[in-house]
Parts: sequence; C-alpha cells; structure tokens
Amino acid sequence: MQLYSFFNSSTSYRVRIALALKGQEVEYHGVNLRAGEQRLAQHLELSRIGGVPVFVDDNGVALTQSLAIIDYLDALYPQAPLVPTEPLLRARVLEVAQLIACDIHPLNNVRVLGYLQRVLEVGLEEKDRWYAHWVAEGLSALEVLLQRHGSGPYCFGEQPTLADCCLVPQVANAERMGCDLRAYPRVVAVYDHCQAQPAFQRAAPSQQPDFTQ
Amino acid sequence: MQLYSFFNSSTSYRVRIALALKGQEVEYHGVNLRAGEQRLAQHLELSRIGGVPVFVDDNGVALTQSLAIIDYLDALYPQAPLVPTEPLLRARVLEVAQLIACDIHPLNNVRVLGYLQRVLEVGLEEKDRWYAHWVAEGLSALEVLLQRHGSGPYCFGEQPTLADCCLVPQVANAERMGCDLRAYPRVVAVYDHCQAQPAFQRAAPSQQPDFTQ
Repeated sequence: MQLYSFFNSSTSYRVRIALALKGQEVEYHGVNLRAGEQRLAQHLELSRIGGVPVFVDDNGVALTQSLAIIDYLDALYPQAPLVPTEPLLRARVLEVAQLIACDIHPLNNVRVLGYLQRVLEVGLEEKDRWYAHWVAEGLSALEVLLQRHGSGPYCFGEQPTLADCCLVPQVANAERMGCDLRAYPRVVAVYDHCQAQPAFQRAAPSQQPDFTQ
Repeated sequence: MQLYSFFNSSTSYRVRIALALKGQEVEYHGVNLRAGEQRLAQHLELSRIGGVPVFVDDNGVALTQSLAIIDYLDALYPQAPLVPTEPLLRARVLEVAQLIACDIHPLNNVRVLGYLQRVLEVGLEEKDRWYAHWVAEGLSALEVLLQRHGSGPYCFGEQPTLADCCLVPQVANAERMGCDLRAYPRVVAVYDHCQAQPAFQRAAPSQQPDFTQ
C-alpha cells in the first residue's frame, strides 16, 4: 500500500492516524504542498484537483478523499472499525467527522488561503481573522455535539473512531495557528487523550519522512 | 420525521433527494437563510453552527450534516441503499460525495459568500469569480472520476446513490450561477438523467413549501 501525503496536511494526517490505529504500514510518498508539487502533471494524474492524501491499495486502486479512504480501510481491515455499525452511534461519529471535514477544514486549507492572498490580496491580519473565524464557529459546534452525545476519553467512548481521526488534526492546526481553545474543554480533553496514544503519535507531522520545520 | 430545510440550500436538497428516493414523507420546516432564521436561538438549539438540514427521526433524535443524515436514512430504510456495500463501488461513491461536499460546496455556501462581502468587502464581480473558480476546479475533478470509474445513466450504474444526491444540487447551483458546464459532459449527462426522474423532481427547490422566486 502507498500513501501520497504531506506531513503538514491535516487530511493526510487523518488517514495516517487510521492506518496507525489499524497497525498498517504503507510506502510513504511526500508531496510538498509548499513547493507546489501537488500541481505537477504526475500528481494530477492521481488527484485531478491536486490534493493529498491519495491512497493506493495492493491492487493499484488509487483513491482520493480522506473520509472515503478511511471507510475503505475499514472494509480492508475490519477489526476495530473506525466507523461503528450501530446506527445512532454511527450517525454521531459521521456527524462530527463531516462537521470538521465540511464546515471547518475546507475553508482553511492551503489552496483557499492561497487564493485569499494571491487573488483577493487579503492581508496577513485579515487572513488570520478568516482562519480563526471558521475555527471558532466549527469548534463551538463540535464542543456542543461532544458534550451532548459523547462520553469517555475519545469522542464517543472507550475506542477511537473516525471522529477522533478528524478531531486531532483540526485541533493541532488550530493550536499551531494560535487559536484560543479555552471555550472547548471537551474538545481539548479528547485531543489531549489522543495525543498520549502511540498510534496518534506515530501519525503526527513531526514523525513523517518529509517533515521539515 | 421532520426536516428543517431551506428550499435553495443544496445540502438540504441532497437529503430531500434521498428521502424521495426512499419514498419517505417528512414534516417540512422551512428555515429562511436569506432572512437569517438559521441564527435564531430556537434553530441554534438544533444546529449550533446555524445550518440546514436538520433531520429529526420518529424518536426525536436530531441529526445535522447531510451526508451523516443520508447514511442514517440507509440504516432506517435499507431497501435500495444509497451507499453501496461492495467495498470498491462504495469507495467510489464516497469519493465523489466527499469531493462535492468538502472541495466544492463549503466554499460557495451562504455563510462564506456573506463573509467575503461583509467582512472582506469583496465586490460582486470578484465574488462571482471566487464562486466559478471552485466550481471549475471541483467539476473538472468530478468529470475525471466519473469518466474513469462510472458508467450507466447515474454516476455509478443503473441505480442512484449518494453520489447522485450530491451531484444534482451542486450542478443545479452552478447552472443557476451561470457557470460554463461544457467541459463536463459526463457530469451534465448524469444531471440531465436524474432531473428526468420523479424522485429528483419532487426534491427540487421549486417543489418545496418555502419556495419563493
């Protein structure tokens, strides 16, 4: 199996967590988003939109979209499923994952911040305010969902799920960007718990072959 | 069952298609996004981020996030599943759904266009260019995925799936905004086929109780 990833990409980070939780090793290909490698013809062949991660299975099947990849990993390695099968728990896990994947992350990724600066000529301060705005809206909603429906050290109970695979990279990003997280105690507690687990540690940006400061 | 929806919201439209395909009726509550009803305390209690759709099942379980809702509908009404179970087909359906739900739609929804105009004071022309930019990037990628992996009148074969529930509202939006769709023949063929089916027609914005010009 192969993974096209950038150490600092949070969608790649989600898939790395899922792989680590399932104890799976992959051949790692770094795609340097800062150097624009995602727009090289060779990468566009794998991901027409120029994104990471791209997962390639042992039969050469190439798949994009982190949440689709994690669902597929559950089919390949059904032990310890990351998307539970009990309907209501499953719905809550998917609700949290989609909140992060649709309502927070897409607004703050490299291609969007690049457009703001390059095309709309938005200044640094306004760009940071944009970033913090979507993080605050999204994490407020996440905090409510976890307080209402979650319990235990992970988002939903004693076992990690897709929700945790999405939460950790998002909170790590927010922390790195200096966002104030004090209003989200349950989110931060889940984050801290995850960060103490070996699988989450192995998936961290600093542990990847393409890591640079 | 109840659905909080806005006739013109494409995430609500996805869920309406899924309900219609499953032959299910719901009590419909219009939430007027143009009038800001999504930010009223009563609605924020259902959706902390102030979004639609919100689905409420017969037990009073309230669920946000259109893709989580559609997955839950598959659990409640398993006949004619919208997310297939065969792993590779399932992966392709989820890949297309996530491409639309994460890489296109979040950049062009009401709250983001509002922020561009209100906070960043972006002009109308630049706002339209922003809109068209993300549509073009996303639909180009969608066209490649459908050409490579899809066949048949729907995205993936003879039966509608979650991929079609996402494609139709996205293409309807792009059309309404005057985006040029000539570069995406397979996307448009699927769209045209879906629009000729009664379930898709019942789910259309113009057929909803809160429709206005």
